[in-house]
Amino acid sequence: MQVNVLPESARAMSIASLRARYLDGSLTPAQLVDALAARTSGEDAHHVWIRALTRDEMMAYAQRLEGRDPASLPLYGIPFAIKDNIDLAGVPTTAGCPAYAYTPERSAPVVERLIAAGAIPVGKTNLDQFATGLSGQRSPYGACRNALDPRYASGGSSSGSAVAVALGLAAFSLGTDTAGSGRVPAAFHGLVGLKPTKGVLSTLGVVPACRSLDCVSIFAQSASDAACVFDVAHGMADGDPYARAWQPSTRAFAVAPATLRGVRFGVPRKAQLAFYGDDSYAAAFDVALDKLRTAGAELVEIDFEPFLATARLLYEGPWVAERLAAIRAFFESQPDALHPVTRQIIGGAARWSAADAFAAFDRLAALRLEAAQVWEHIDVMVTPTSPTTATIAELEADPIGVNARFGYYTNFVNLLDLSALAVPAGVCAEGAHAGLPFGVTFVARAHDDAALLALARAWLGETQEASAPDTRVEPQSTDAATVRVAVVGAHLSGEPLNVQLTERNATLVATTTTAPAYRLYALPIATAGTPVKPGLVRVSDGGTAIEVEVWDMPVAAYGSFVTGIRAPLGIGTLTLADGSVVQGFLCESAALAGAEDISAYGGWRAYRRHVAQPGREGTDATTNAAATP
Amino acid sequence: MQVNVLPESARAMSIASLRARYLDGSLTPAQLVDALAARTSGEDAHHVWIRALTRDEMMAYAQRLEGRDPASLPLYGIPFAIKDNIDLAGVPTTAGCPAYAYTPERSAPVVERLIAAGAIPVGKTNLDQFATGLSGQRSPYGACRNALDPRYASGGSSSGSAVAVALGLAAFSLGTDTAGSGRVPAAFHGLVGLKPTKGVLSTLGVVPACRSLDCVSIFAQSASDAACVFDVAHGMADGDPYARAWQPSTRAFAVAPATLRGVRFGVPRKAQLAFYGDDSYAAAFDVALDKLRTAGAELVEIDFEPFLATARLLYEGPWVAERLAAIRAFFESQPDALHPVTRQIIGGAARWSAADAFAAFDRLAALRLEAAQVWEHIDVMVTPTSPTTATIAELEADPIGVNARFGYYTNFVNLLDLSALAVPAGVCAEGAHAGLPFGVTFVARAHDDAALLALARAWLGETQEASAPDTRVEPQSTDAATVRVAVVGAHLSGEPLNVQLTERNATLVATTTTAPAYRLYALPIATAGTPVKPGLVRVSDGGTAIEVEVWDMPVAAYGSFVTGIRAPLGIGTLTLADGSVVQGFLCESAALAGAEDISAYGGWRAYRRHVAQPGREGTDATTNAAATP
Repeated sequence: MQVNVLPESARAMSIASLRARYLDGSLTPAQLVDALAARTSGEDAHHVWIRALTRDEMMAYAQRLEGRDPASLPLYGIPFAIKDNIDLAGVPTTAGCPAYAYTPERSAPVVERLIAAGAIPVGKTNLDQFATGLSGQRSPYGACRNALDPRYASGGSSSGSAVAVALGLAAFSLGTDTAGSGRVPAAFHGLVGLKPTKGVLSTLGVVPACRSLDCVSIFAQSASDAACVFDVAHGMADGDPYARAWQPSTRAFAVAPATLRGVRFGVPRKAQLAFYGDDSYAAAFDVALDKLRTAGAELVEIDFEPFLATARLLYEGPWVAERLAAIRAFFESQPDALHPVTRQIIGGAARWSAADAFAAFDRLAALRLEAAQVWEHIDVMVTPTSPTTATIAELEADPIGVNARFGYYTNFVNLLDLSALAVPAGVCAEGAHAGLPFGVTFVARAHDDAALLALARAWLGETQEASAPDTRVEPQSTDAATVRVAVVGAHLSGEPLNVQLTERNATLVATTTTAPAYRLYALPIATAGTPVKPGLVRVSDGGTAIEVEVWDMPVAAYGSFVTGIRAPLGIGTLTLADGSVVQGFLCESAALAGAEDISAYGGWRAYRRHVAQPGREGTDATTNAAATP
Repeated sequence: MQVNVLPESARAMSIASLRARYLDGSLTPAQLVDALAARTSGEDAHHVWIRALTRDEMMAYAQRLEGRDPASLPLYGIPFAIKDNIDLAGVPTTAGCPAYAYTPERSAPVVERLIAAGAIPVGKTNLDQFATGLSGQRSPYGACRNALDPRYASGGSSSGSAVAVALGLAAFSLGTDTAGSGRVPAAFHGLVGLKPTKGVLSTLGVVPACRSLDCVSIFAQSASDAACVFDVAHGMADGDPYARAWQPSTRAFAVAPATLRGVRFGVPRKAQLAFYGDDSYAAAFDVALDKLRTAGAELVEIDFEPFLATARLLYEGPWVAERLAAIRAFFESQPDALHPVTRQIIGGAARWSAADAFAAFDRLAALRLEAAQVWEHIDVMVTPTSPTTATIAELEADPIGVNARFGYYTNFVNLLDLSALAVPAGVCAEGAHAGLPFGVTFVARAHDDAALLALARAWLGETQEASAPDTRVEPQSTDAATVRVAVVGAHLSGEPLNVQLTERNATLVATTTTAPAYRLYALPIATAGTPVKPGLVRVSDGGTAIEVEVWDMPVAAYGSFVTGIRAPLGIGTLTLADGSVVQGFLCESAALAGAEDISAYGGWRAYRRHVAQPGREGTDATTNAAATP
């Protein structure tokens, strides 16, 4: 559906492309590192890097992958760049301010997760100092140049991270996003930029901008690539006061691949749109809306005012004092160490009192309630990502004013606890910026990240990744004579209640696992009686795949089977690893108080093997009860 | 287990006592109003009231109950007092400051809920001005005197509300609690004081103190009485930015009535306790801990420092600026209209900058994480409610210093988003305060309100209310040809899925309720599809009886019935009001996030009638969907 504006050399560096080559054996991580080192050791005309990793440093990460099956790690050998306000062990973190630099011993947990999944860090990227800005020009390491047209700004503050991906120096990159820093640079480079739900990617090991609003963001060439990264990157981190468990919403906007039929897109009223005279961008947004309509989307005009009021609250309100609070000792002791524009902005914090801050929070609470009403009428909001772009010369002439324009459509998102995904929307066809990429942002509620990524795949015409499940359960026949039911505990083959299946002429269809959305508990005998039984519950987050057997039972016999089930167990529907839905055992959650969470064993049989081990403490009661059901 | 310190005249005004008299016909609401009017029209020696309602005003509320069955309304004819920072329609709200007064047209939603449940307002009570204080002495309407010994302070800021209940002028009362204002006055009067989970009782129509921390609180004579009020009072309110849906936890601390066996109580280390030299209180706390041990509780020593550090952050930090922000225009234009102590305290807000505020929030986030770890080792925390008490003379001599002491064990609770219940713990046996009541507070996690109330019933030795079920279901025959199944929502007679029963030749056996061990939720269409459906879940505590129909279905047809049920619903076993166990609908608890708790309606049909009422806002989508399944 969309034009990829990136050069072929960059496209070859997508996660999907690299993964295909690793899997077919035409590339090794060491070969990739050699090729990258050759490129990053040359001139850095775009001012991408604050510190590119050396060949040896990258190779040390590549060597960890030796002997591993490329299929076994979701980011096997995938090179990524890291905004230089995020810690990478052993490499200085500068936040764009040399005097502030420190060398962390440990990587940020989000970086650790990526490395553990096989990704290879390639360098620390340039940024607007202390992530304060949307231009990419406020850095003592050089103004970051747009990868597609070096006269133009890169966008910021995650400037180098976007440029690195656009130049094919990394398959993806991490940025941060407090008011649009993970979205504006994506728009300026035809990239996907995911600003995830606040807190689901840990900000531990990140130099704060506004601690209560900061998000780690993801730049990638495609929504599918971004989804791969998000899947690995999200997760709780010990000691992170701002971490939140991701609770993936059950909303799905795109009902079928490659169509937007029936998805309700909220669009600000014409008078509430701003382009600052940029006819190229205004026309490109109209084109994008036409494409949405053509793809079957329903466009719903919305009142954008609560969102704009929130944006003004951020930009003209006391949150700048949160930036000061984050670096106060440094700011007060070494003010001259700051970039002059950054110093001017953060120095403005002094005019805000604590009472001003509390008044602004109260105003925000009211705006949040008002803005929330829009979701009764739409699934997702669509706006330009930035109202316009600018040349480096234009930004140098008015560094604060031009920068402010870029945030018109982005500033409100984090304050309202929304998720957002910047996506390419072709190139400008006319006007001063003809030929430059244009981007729109899809904005949705918190925890809608996966739904946004799926929507973007449809928008971008990306085909679904063909993921080969290890055990695929054939769809149940439409013959209503049998019912397919998954068992998880005492009804498994060889377990004491399996006879309840076989005596009803049920047949074993497959041994597989649930979707990774469940937890398994060993129920106390006081709760569930004998024989000992587990309880399976679906959870919103932190679920895992649990071993099940899938059986087909004559439906006429199923009623009597169900009536034999005792509380706290019951029968509902389970989602299996391949996405199919079958009948299966559930457990009332009220019965789980005091029950041991045994999900880590992966299934009931593995757990029972474990507790039966001689010498294990505290197993006697359970083991004995099981031995004599 | 505990001594009731209230006089017999007050005890006769408990909700339980009044309800019994309404049910046996020995009292009518009009008679009650006459008796109350005779008392409240006399001298107000304790300075309870800012404005007692007249006989005629109360009678107007009583007349609404004419012709109603006393059993049909949970608070039928129950008199209650309202702290004068909470709106009652047509009566001025002063917040303890005459110059600030306004007369609201509408009652606060929490007051409306109580009145709709049959409660009768009796007056607006005295308070520490703008709810700033814990003493009850900072009011131009007179220093509030302790109901049990008028030389002593009432505690505050919800002073008059506690005194009104202790004097038997109301069966219960509403206070507010930002830093302990709903707990300290309870302790000083031998009352139960519930500081619910933040946001579950709406603070709309309440003059803010610290808007982000304020809670509406409940004073009552017993935990059972407080539970009756809480059940009615909680609920979302349109337009309240701080409202949160109550999500009752499945935790249950007290495993059986009148025993605390196995409940893990966290107790601060000895060196972290403070009594400011009050030997009476120190000894009384030791007695309370002994009683807990005797009742089978497990006492776990905990590190109280994260909680104390949080309390200091509130008391010595920038939150006072939130009080200023709430009344800034008034404060700046009429500073002389304030009580001198209140003016001094709120005036102190000027020294805090916005950067200070953000730094404090960041510190709070870290403390919250640290403090949260304690819940891995305990179920509930127990502390004195106040470290000491004081005479009015002592408070007059040092109004800020003595007041500060009262908050030692209360200040941290709201900042850490915890629930808390102040409960009586007998009287001081020795020392300077011998004969005065002593109280402890049970502190638990957010949404543990019902578990706390159940725990307090056990602690106070309250017997469970004996509720006689209206309909007794005959035991199911042992004839295995049919299965008995309870339906609760869209399968009820006249509801869209009832046909799934009748087409299988099922027959209606009885209409009854579940045992009082369940909660009912309205499932969003996004979760459960159409027609609209409820989800029933068994809870460990805080359950209620939900209307069900019981049907008998041929067992051979039951299997196909079960296979037609879609997630998140399933089939398990339900316990009915008469204790019998039948097949019935369950709901996966993972589906309840965001679902409205409609248990208070008593059943799906009552709820549907409510949402279908003409003139009720925002119901069209739901109602239409149900009308055309």
